[in-house]
Amino acid sequence: MLEKRNFPVKELHLFGSERSAGRKVPTKWGDIAIEDFSVDKAAKLDVVFVSVSGDFSKQYCDAMAKDGAVVIDNSSAFRYEPDVCLCVPEINAETARKSKRRVIANPNCTTAIGLMALYPLHQKYGLKKVIMSTYQAASGAGAEGMAELFNGVKEVVNGPEGTVAKNEVFAHPLPFNLIPHIDVFQENLYTKEEMKVTWECQKIMDLPTLPVSCTAVRIPTLRAHAESITIETERPVDLAGARAALAAAPGVLLKDEPAAKRYPMPLTASTAYNVEVGRVRNSVVFGDHGLDFFVCGDQLLRGAALNAVLVAEAISQPSGTPFSPKL
Amino acid sequence: MLEKRNFPVKELHLFGSERSAGRKVPTKWGDIAIEDFSVDKAAKLDVVFVSVSGDFSKQYCDAMAKDGAVVIDNSSAFRYEPDVCLCVPEINAETARKSKRRVIANPNCTTAIGLMALYPLHQKYGLKKVIMSTYQAASGAGAEGMAELFNGVKEVVNGPEGTVAKNEVFAHPLPFNLIPHIDVFQENLYTKEEMKVTWECQKIMDLPTLPVSCTAVRIPTLRAHAESITIETERPVDLAGARAALAAAPGVLLKDEPAAKRYPMPLTASTAYNVEVGRVRNSVVFGDHGLDFFVCGDQLLRGAALNAVLVAEAISQPSGTPFSPKL
Repeated sequence: MLEKRNFPVKELHLFGSERSAGRKVPTKWGDIAIEDFSVDKAAKLDVVFVSVSGDFSKQYCDAMAKDGAVVIDNSSAFRYEPDVCLCVPEINAETARKSKRRVIANPNCTTAIGLMALYPLHQKYGLKKVIMSTYQAASGAGAEGMAELFNGVKEVVNGPEGTVAKNEVFAHPLPFNLIPHIDVFQENLYTKEEMKVTWECQKIMDLPTLPVSCTAVRIPTLRAHAESITIETERPVDLAGARAALAAAPGVLLKDEPAAKRYPMPLTASTAYNVEVGRVRNSVVFGDHGLDFFVCGDQLLRGAALNAVLVAEAISQPSGTPFSPKL
Repeated sequence: MLEKRNFPVKELHLFGSERSAGRKVPTKWGDIAIEDFSVDKAAKLDVVFVSVSGDFSKQYCDAMAKDGAVVIDNSSAFRYEPDVCLCVPEINAETARKSKRRVIANPNCTTAIGLMALYPLHQKYGLKKVIMSTYQAASGAGAEGMAELFNGVKEVVNGPEGTVAKNEVFAHPLPFNLIPHIDVFQENLYTKEEMKVTWECQKIMDLPTLPVSCTAVRIPTLRAHAESITIETERPVDLAGARAALAAAPGVLLKDEPAAKRYPMPLTASTAYNVEVGRVRNSVVFGDHGLDFFVCGDQLLRGAALNAVLVAEAISQPSGTPFSPKL
């Protein structure tokens, strides 16, 4: 992503475990050998991207940030700490720029994708309620999840009738199935994945009391998450105005021509930088004070690596500059 | 389905096109030869099940019903006519029994599946708003749809990387994809499939002004539809009470033990007569006046053949009898 975004890299260090150390990775800045991770070395850099685990992040992020490195952490370790900016840079880059604590959290993928549409609609009409049902790809469970789905499907279609795939990564076999269970169940019977959407939408948009409810469902797709979203708004929504707000929003591709069969889908949203938004219509339930719409975004890009690199771009811009990157 | 339900068949006639006429079908009532369709012959029977097309139904159903046959029609031709009962027999069998017009409409599959959970909750708490997002199987587009998905998936997993399956039945390739477009788009930008859920929930529960909004999405599963449903209720909902109402409802299997990873899924709901209901929780958005829950039911059974045969069972029971079949 740093290569593709032409990030102004002066010096690139790649840290890994002892096991990976020494292996060379070809980059446009030369072949770089992976180094055994060292807090002290990392702390001397300008920007550190961390994508290991919550435990690793808790142990090392603040130590790396103490000498001035900005640490952009992809885990959920710091997301809900009040002095940590949870950042979708098109929305709250300024909070990241002004944050004293130099650890910045990259949000949950489902949240980041949905917010690309929710925030411009909030700015124009004011969000009152958000109800979301998700269609999440196997990549949310990592490369192992994608492999389990792909190989499982292969086993089913090539095997005798009635073959059921094995599962280790997912709670149940995913081929030709869906699983309404992502991450662990909470006391309120929502999953942690679902509550992440609630908590992170509230924090990133700075709307701490906004009611957001999510049902998170894993489906047999590979790497783009889709979301069916219903909103109630403070002010009346005219459809043309909503479309215009979405079309103008950074990070959004308005794809909403039903007659031409153009709407968001994993087939087209996978590998795309922009989040596709479509099926926009005034809600049967909330009338002109609400919308139903559908989004689809690449889980590995806006949901992870792209957002992290955009955070790094945004914080290197001067305070007060709205962040509207070319994608 | 007539065989499996031990329907009291005295005489079975199978009608088809000229092309099928003569072919013998093994049944537990003997090998029955398909007859070339004749309105007059069909009209002399007690019950006629029709599953051809809306146009066929419009042309022949009333003619078959005029001599006293009850015609149970699986098409959408008559669903919205005020003097036709649109029937989920556990809900409105009495309307079907009392209907003067002897054409009874079998509902849209998505609606019938969702209503199994919605109606008992309505009886206990009163529905105020219904918001639904669907996860619909390929079988909704018939055997051709199932074949296109299965063969398409086979092509993709066995082909070179980047293989995209062909599509004829669906608007786009369905393997590893989803399509937020089922049936044709209406003027209000909902699809007809989505509006069927609105219109049919209102008609079957006799709640003509109930706001119901649906987003209907085709996903790569084979024959069970799932639905993520949010409701707002007139009266406060206690979770134990809601669970008890669902557990007691005919046609429902309450499958709601998150800790044991038991919740509705196509893998378990396919070929089952009962609709699975789970993930029941008080809604973050509507608090104690609402629920989020998830349902999954076999599209070919409750969504079609089973419901049709249950209608026939229900109307042969005396008026005033609640219909609570053993499934």
